[in-house]
Amino acid sequence: MRVLGIDPGTARLGWAVVGKEQGREVLVDCGCLESPAHTDLAIRLEAIFAELNRIIKLHRPAEAAIEDLFFATNRKTAMSVAAARGVVLLACQLNKLKINSYTPLQIKSSLTGYGAADKKQVEFMVKQILKINSLPQLDDTVDALAAALTHFSFAPARNV
Amino acid sequence: MRVLGIDPGTARLGWAVVGKEQGREVLVDCGCLESPAHTDLAIRLEAIFAELNRIIKLHRPAEAAIEDLFFATNRKTAMSVAAARGVVLLACQLNKLKINSYTPLQIKSSLTGYGAADKKQVEFMVKQILKINSLPQLDDTVDALAAALTHFSFAPARNV
Repeated sequence: MRVLGIDPGTARLGWAVVGKEQGREVLVDCGCLESPAHTDLAIRLEAIFAELNRIIKLHRPAEAAIEDLFFATNRKTAMSVAAARGVVLLACQLNKLKINSYTPLQIKSSLTGYGAADKKQVEFMVKQILKINSLPQLDDTVDALAAALTHFSFAPARNV
Repeated sequence: MRVLGIDPGTARLGWAVVGKEQGREVLVDCGCLESPAHTDLAIRLEAIFAELNRIIKLHRPAEAAIEDLFFATNRKTAMSVAAARGVVLLACQLNKLKINSYTPLQIKSSLTGYGAADKKQVEFMVKQILKINSLPQLDDTVDALAAALTHFSFAPARNV
């Protein structure tokens, strides 16, 4: 079973596909979709929709783990990120993925055992679990990996 | 030239197609997409996407006039409506409509000449302009009609 982790955003959208093989999580693919500053929102949403369709058709994840929105930013940014999340939900729904959302608190807690963990602690655990030595450059990609790994930790009873 | 007016929402999404014939605006079609309470957001977004694709393919509007978000509601509702707006933008973009947004203030001002006009005044002007005696039952549909009519009043120089 493969899980598509997503950290929604308009300027940058992080994504990661994680599988489970012989009882442990394995990184399949990951990346970050970036668009230039001042790109129209509709054009960004079109690119997000196309990229997610491409990734889903390529890697065939059965479930999605989407990081819930958390806003310390202004209203306009919040509305744009919510629009991006709408397109993410649509792409997952049209491709029949089972959709799950996790808050930043749930992600930090499940990976480090500590809801107020900092970025370094989360990164450390992502590397430990996936047995990789280095992480993707962009935080958004790491956040998407963390969301996917959280889903596996939340769903052990379902044998995913 | 036909304009697709949209009042975005998740529980109810109003839409209207208005054309211009011999110098005056004519109602082509309008309606309101409703979904039952407590429907999953992803399922609602899928229905919105399917319905907009159907309407656009049927009536072939060249431009869209979308009512901008205005929030007196709670954060969760605001995020859902923003998600719906994202899917509306995506559907318009994929179908190559030129996208325009209007605030409630712009819509009221352009139709009645008064930014603080009440609902009855807007309804009166919508009926006057379209030369119809009665309006659709749901406010969301009327708001979509008002958005489409606003677009015509904003774009006379472009001969739409």
